[in-house]
Amino acid sequence: MFIGVDIGGTSIKVGLVSKSGSLKAKESFPVVKGEDQKVTIEKLGDFILCLAKENKLNVSEIEGIGIGCPGAINSEKGTCDSSPNLKWSSLPVVDIIKNKTGVRKVRISNDANVAALGEALFGAGKKYNSSIFITLGTGVGGGVVIDRKLFEGNEGKGTEIGHSVIVVGGEPCGCGRKGCFEAYASATALIRLTKEVMKKNPKSYMWHYVHGDIDQVDGKTAFESSKAMDKAALEVVDTYCMYLAEGMLNYMNIFRPNAIILGGGICGQKEYLTSRLEKYVRSYHFGFKSCPEVEILIASLGNDAGIIGAASLVM
Amino acid sequence: MFIGVDIGGTSIKVGLVSKSGSLKAKESFPVVKGEDQKVTIEKLGDFILCLAKENKLNVSEIEGIGIGCPGAINSEKGTCDSSPNLKWSSLPVVDIIKNKTGVRKVRISNDANVAALGEALFGAGKKYNSSIFITLGTGVGGGVVIDRKLFEGNEGKGTEIGHSVIVVGGEPCGCGRKGCFEAYASATALIRLTKEVMKKNPKSYMWHYVHGDIDQVDGKTAFESSKAMDKAALEVVDTYCMYLAEGMLNYMNIFRPNAIILGGGICGQKEYLTSRLEKYVRSYHFGFKSCPEVEILIASLGNDAGIIGAASLVM
Repeated sequence: MFIGVDIGGTSIKVGLVSKSGSLKAKESFPVVKGEDQKVTIEKLGDFILCLAKENKLNVSEIEGIGIGCPGAINSEKGTCDSSPNLKWSSLPVVDIIKNKTGVRKVRISNDANVAALGEALFGAGKKYNSSIFITLGTGVGGGVVIDRKLFEGNEGKGTEIGHSVIVVGGEPCGCGRKGCFEAYASATALIRLTKEVMKKNPKSYMWHYVHGDIDQVDGKTAFESSKAMDKAALEVVDTYCMYLAEGMLNYMNIFRPNAIILGGGICGQKEYLTSRLEKYVRSYHFGFKSCPEVEILIASLGNDAGIIGAASLVM
Repeated sequence: MFIGVDIGGTSIKVGLVSKSGSLKAKESFPVVKGEDQKVTIEKLGDFILCLAKENKLNVSEIEGIGIGCPGAINSEKGTCDSSPNLKWSSLPVVDIIKNKTGVRKVRISNDANVAALGEALFGAGKKYNSSIFITLGTGVGGGVVIDRKLFEGNEGKGTEIGHSVIVVGGEPCGCGRKGCFEAYASATALIRLTKEVMKKNPKSYMWHYVHGDIDQVDGKTAFESSKAMDKAALEVVDTYCMYLAEGMLNYMNIFRPNAIILGGGICGQKEYLTSRLEKYVRSYHFGFKSCPEVEILIASLGNDAGIIGAASLVM
């Protein structure tokens, strides 16, 4: 049995995962703000031992512990070099967990990369050799799997998928640049675009959808209103899908995946979203005729991708 | 001793390369238009044997043959799947060369990727673990080396560095999309931009530089005129460097290289170019504080990067 750990900004989730990627048990504990970083990781070690015990598992039966952590992770050295959200730095996570648990095989990687590995090996991408996972949330994150192995770039710090500029001088991004993919393809960007178009179209059905309150706009407003054939809503959906597809095409030309897996709330739109993206992507699919075809898929592991992906780091 | 082969649109260059990456001998033969693709590769096999013989080298002393070839190359299968320039397709290059020469270790990869490997291991990048090579010519090509190994993406067909859109809906690109990095950072793009700005500035020194003939504009016009403090020329240089730096920042966030190596004619500008790029890149270097610093370097192997890089495929 394998342990998968998904470290988040507010809680740390720990799960027991089988060789075939199925989640056998899952528990979590809160991250205490201001707590010494080393203490938090030692707590995690204890928590792993408790979870194993509760599930009648000896330490010797734990084949490995994999950890997904936000921030800049050095996966070779097993350290969290810097995690702005958690306010961690130069933290030897792997060594602490090894010492605390006695388990020898412990690995760590960036949380988004780990989720990409989970979806690639045991989720939507399991039929494909190489895939890119893109989550459309508050920001845009994700990871790249080539030949069923995680590709992390130099020092394990690459594939910052949200932070490639697709519109030089465009919308400001949290990273300090302007025009990042994240600033056009995140749920936040969709909401911004929806509001912009609503303000220009006071008769749009979108106003009806939010009961006249623009603060109620969310990632569904434009998509759902476009299904009622509202022209302004269709404009939002088409524009959003165009930007998303342009970013996807960029990564197709860089990595040549067999599949792109989309995650995040917007993916509730399923085929209504993917059919639009497919049409755009097929029209502009560059490259020589013998480059791999790319399937556009919806993530299937949901919130468990992180735990399952983390466990698969040590399989 | 190793053999490096650099296949181009008009000629095929073959060189003898030592373990330390120095080029001991080099010869070439022309590509005959319309010739059967298999015949061309068989000729290459004979040419390799002749070059070895001329240099008093037995076949048994050839430790390997590495080949760089334009187009979509399957480096695992050793085939050229499609090369529009050469009009080759489904060509088992490696098998033909193995049969013809009797040398067992034969490998092939994309020509731009191979040049990147040459610069990384034996050229400007030799002090660095991971580097990206970007050539600024008629188009924009290049390759990625991570941990001193070539990164080619899935099926060896990735890292199409010129074909990532940085301006959605921007300048048309030969690949069918609009706004590619190539359409802003190539020498062709620099010339287009120079002409546009000249037309708006009839008193610019750039007109003097080209003796009043806009058809004489080349990749040097704006750079050299800007050294005479011509305002319009400085505008061209700043705009060009900004687009180039934005593309470089994108690849920094994806691959986290320790160095970016620039090749192509524009690099004759040396520090005049790199100092501008460094300034821009340092201002917008995203990522966590612990991400690697990136040096911006000028390629040092010139036209031999392809041969030396090809040979290093089999070292």
